[in-house]
This record gives sequence, C-alpha cells and structure tokens, in this order.
Amino acid sequence: MDSMQLVQVTRGSIIESAHRGHIAVVDSKGELLFYAGNPEKIVFARSSMKPIQAIPVVETGAADRFKLDDADLSLCCASHSGEVMHTGRVHSILGRAGLEASHLQCGTHIPHWPDSYIQLMKEGKEVTPLYNNCSGKHTGMLVTAKHLHESVEDYYELSHPVQQRILSAVSEMTNYPAEKIEIGIDGCGVPVHGLPLKNIAFAYARMANPHLLSDDRKLSVRRITKSLIAAPEMVGGTERFCTDFMKAGNGRFFGKAGAEGVYCIGDLETGIGIAIKIEDGNGRAVYPAAVETLKQLNLLSSQQLEELKGYCQPKLVNARKESVGELIPDFQLIPVH
Amino acid sequence: MDSMQLVQVTRGSIIESAHRGHIAVVDSKGELLFYAGNPEKIVFARSSMKPIQAIPVVETGAADRFKLDDADLSLCCASHSGEVMHTGRVHSILGRAGLEASHLQCGTHIPHWPDSYIQLMKEGKEVTPLYNNCSGKHTGMLVTAKHLHESVEDYYELSHPVQQRILSAVSEMTNYPAEKIEIGIDGCGVPVHGLPLKNIAFAYARMANPHLLSDDRKLSVRRITKSLIAAPEMVGGTERFCTDFMKAGNGRFFGKAGAEGVYCIGDLETGIGIAIKIEDGNGRAVYPAAVETLKQLNLLSSQQLEELKGYCQPKLVNARKESVGELIPDFQLIPVH
Repeated sequence: MDSMQLVQVTRGSIIESAHRGHIAVVDSKGELLFYAGNPEKIVFARSSMKPIQAIPVVETGAADRFKLDDADLSLCCASHSGEVMHTGRVHSILGRAGLEASHLQCGTHIPHWPDSYIQLMKEGKEVTPLYNNCSGKHTGMLVTAKHLHESVEDYYELSHPVQQRILSAVSEMTNYPAEKIEIGIDGCGVPVHGLPLKNIAFAYARMANPHLLSDDRKLSVRRITKSLIAAPEMVGGTERFCTDFMKAGNGRFFGKAGAEGVYCIGDLETGIGIAIKIEDGNGRAVYPAAVETLKQLNLLSSQQLEELKGYCQPKLVNARKESVGELIPDFQLIPVH
Repeated sequence: MDSMQLVQVTRGSIIESAHRGHIAVVDSKGELLFYAGNPEKIVFARSSMKPIQAIPVVETGAADRFKLDDADLSLCCASHSGEVMHTGRVHSILGRAGLEASHLQCGTHIPHWPDSYIQLMKEGKEVTPLYNNCSGKHTGMLVTAKHLHESVEDYYELSHPVQQRILSAVSEMTNYPAEKIEIGIDGCGVPVHGLPLKNIAFAYARMANPHLLSDDRKLSVRRITKSLIAAPEMVGGTERFCTDFMKAGNGRFFGKAGAEGVYCIGDLETGIGIAIKIEDGNGRAVYPAAVETLKQLNLLSSQQLEELKGYCQPKLVNARKESVGELIPDFQLIPVH
C-alpha cells in the first residue's frame, strides 16, 4: 500500500507543499482499528522507542539503586531541548552512579533551546554531549551497565548487554521477532529498530494498557508512563509538542516524537496505541497529523483541542513575523471494520 | 498527474524516508523536453525567481547609476549565508544609493553561516536584516525605487511600482499571464509568484538563451547570468550548493535554490531550463534531484559529476560523525517525444 496525503502546507491561496505518510491505530490486544497509508510499513521508530528502551533501566533494578524519581526516568525517555533543567538533571543522575558527562557517547549537536546555545557562545564554551537531546537515554543505558558491572565504554554497541536487553524489550513489546527487526544506527550512535508501524503502535497500546503482560512488565511500564506524565517538561522542554501535549492530556496520554517524522501516542483510558510516520521525514507535519488522529478518534475534549490548536493547524510565520500560510491536516482515518 | 518519487533516504539496510516531486525540462522555445511528476504543477518558485526579480534592477538603469558590478548584481539574486562578504557588500550597495540597513524590510533570521551567528552572540549583538538571506534582493528593490524617485518605505507591497515591474518581468519571462499568477507572501515579506513548473523552467531557458527576446531584455538577462557565474560565492556562500554548483559548472550553468524544495537551472550551452519542486518542501532532496537531472540529460562532464558527488548522493552523518545513511536519487526522467 502506498502512503497517503496527511498534511497540506498552504501559502496564500495555493497548497505550496504536502506531506504524505502512514498511520496505525491499534488496541492493547494487537488489533488494528484504524489506519492511513500502509500500517505494515517498516519504520525506524527512532526516539519514539525511548519509553520502551527505558524498560531495562527499571527492570534491572538500576532505577531503584540510583534513586531515579519520576523526572529522572522521564528524562531517560526524552529528546530534550538542552535546557538547564535537563543538562543539570543528566549530570545529577550520572553523579549518583559514579559516572561523569565524559562517559556519554552520544556526540554533540547544537541544543534545541536557543537560549542554551546563546549562553554557551557568550561564555565562549563548547557544546558538550550533555546538551545532546539523547543524553538522558544514554544516561539510562549507562546507569544500567554500571549497576550490572558491565563495561561502560561500549554500551552503544549492538553486541553489548545493554543493547541486547533493549532489543529483547522492543521485540516483546512490539510482538515482533528480534531476528526480523532491522537495525540501523541512530543520530546518537545507538542501534535503532525497524519494524512494521502497526507493531510500534501495539507497543504503545501495551504501554497504555499492560493487562496481558507479565506482572514485572506491568510494573515497569506503569512506572515509565507515570513518569512521562508526571514530568512532561523533561521529555521535550519549553514550547515542545511532547511536553505541551502531555500537559494538555492531563494524565490520560503519553506521547513521544521520533526523528524523520515519527510520533507515537498511548491512551491510558482506552488502551489505544497510535504510531505515525511522515514519509518524507519532516517533523513539522507530525504534530498536525497526531492531533488530527486523536480528534478523529474522539479522544480529545474540546478544551484539549483548544489547547493543542496551535499544533494541529500551525501558522507559518515569516521573518517579518507575518502569517503567510498554515499546515492543515487533510486525511480521513480508514476503519478496519 | 501525481508527484513521483525522486529521492530515497536510507538508514542501515532500509529506506527510512522518501521525497516525491515534480521536474520540468524545457528548451528556449518553450517546448517541454522531459519531465517527472506533473510539469504543469502550480508552484511558488520562491527564491529561484530572484534572477528574474533582478531584471528591473538592470533595465531601469539603477545598476549602472549605482555602479553595481558582477558581485553586486549576483548578490541581488542571492539567498546568501550572511557571511562578512555578503553583509559588507549589501551595506556598500545601500550606501552608494544613499540608503541604510534600516531601509531593509526583510525582517531577521539567524544567518545560515554558523560563524556569523557565533560572532554576533559572542559580541552580544542582535541579528539585523543585513543577515537575512534575502537582503541582497531587497537591496536591488530599494536601489531601483531610489533611482526612480519612488517611495522606499513600502517597496515590498504588491501595489508598489517595484513589485509591479517584477510581476511584469516574471510574466514576460515565464510566458504566463500576470493576472493568472498566484500571489503569496515570501519569507521576507515580498510577493511570491505561483505558476506552472514548466513555465518557471521556460524562464530559466530564456535566461540561458535569450535569442527570442527583445534586444534590451537580451542585454539585461545576459548581464545577470554573467554576474551569477562570475560571482557564485555571492549567491549562496561557503559550502552552499548554488555556489559550488556554479563553480563546478565552469561558466556553463547558473542555478538558484528556492525555499520549500525548489531548484532551477539554466544551461547556457544548450539553452535548456530546468525547474524542480520537492512536494514536501524539504530542501535536502533538491540537490540530489538537480544533479541527477543534469546527469540523465548528459549535461555534466565526469569531472563535474565527481565535484558534485557529495551533493548528488550525500551521506547522512550523526552527532558522533558516523555515516548512518544516505540520500539516493531514484527516478527516471520521462521524455516527451
């Protein structure tokens, strides 16, 4: 099945650009309820997999050993903006495990939060791996290795026990054989997992409603989703969709973006999992697609819709701060039954 | 006609994302020679229209009056990176016309060239409109208004003679009625022109071979294309495709990028014009599509292909500077005859 148009980009009176993609809506028994495009599309979930990658942090006992609270665990699932609240907390978690920022193997990029970068430049400082949006995830990996007396130098290698535990958790949660999962290298150097979009949605559905999972797994995924919802500012940051979406969700939803146009949502109330992939990888289209999907599924209150309006149909603003166009969701989910 | 896949984005062993779009290849008589997707697609050429928007700068006599040399005129067609060579020259042209940077109505954005931004931050200075990638184009508009004793405060309004002259030039060069041209607002506040992709390609073909145009128009377009080729560093800047492409072209090609995934090329040797639109607006896909188009048309020497290899099939590099995937052109131009 081909991709489907999901979002239009208007300028003046015409559609200037358009984004196509795929959506899968799955329940906690693994049944596909709705879709757009190809729900079987093999997709790298990228950072949308972080809440599942955090499962071993809890299940190995590392989270308890190093006293990870909700905000700490939420940060382990984050693509954070590199604000002081993020970098300070990464530093703190590492310290509790006897590790340092120099153990982070995630590399560096300019932090999302402009003020952090301006501050570094003003002080003539270098950007460090602490500012990498994945530094929380890497910290979760590091403290797990430390807790189990594994090597902390090569924790990012697929063959390392840290990545093997994650591969098992991804396989179990997505109900997809580990040997069939496609492996690539993520923006921060760790393995990424490629599998059908509907299986990624299934993992989110099981995170939302883990009733068919083992008792241990129930506890760990509930602890993770509770953390995300309790400390949404850790997952993204100021003016970031993940953060604002979970705040608007008011305890009902957890959601996580992934690079190359991925978004995943779990609904604790219905146990529904949603996975979205924008075909062209452009993140600007994924938030309108995500909010529109929730809207079509009747999962948002009118107040939540109002709070998320700026993400559902964002205005395009030019360098003169004029509104010159907008992104408009333009699709209809297809019911399976 | 629907868009066609043009470029794949790989990661590991799978295609992670893909870009669709439209291509039109037209000769200087206006005949469509090759295409991909829909060559009739209505497209905002955005900054790819800048070489045509510069025609009135020459034809009104403003370029001669204010002694615009090749580099100055090239800068009037630029989406520059805000390097010192660009901002200094914009300042110089404005000064020659008795104008100042404060006359620029293009608004501000962070300059493309990272060192310029870092320098501003270190010195605690604000980003000014000089750094806007369109400040050269706005300067061309301003000096034309100044030369003709028109108001310089509202030169960006569609009703201003500056924009009306540009609209006429766009209509003439594209052979498309002015009243049918769709008008939007560009990233820098001036009108943008929406018309069929093949007409945009036709304008580039006529810039490349103006034999059917009036004598005055022949002179002005030859002066503009000569300027672009003589001073390609003004059109983009360090490590920018437009600049590197024209350097590799060695006097044969001129090319100009436009926002939302547009690229246009004129070939002085064959008089062929090419216009490309990436459907989703992502600029990363337009350079592979442009080089591949030239390759399929047999317009590039093996040395030119070698010099442009990094733009045709660019590697995706992560925060650890590892190569994790690449962009690969994946289309075949369709011949009309």
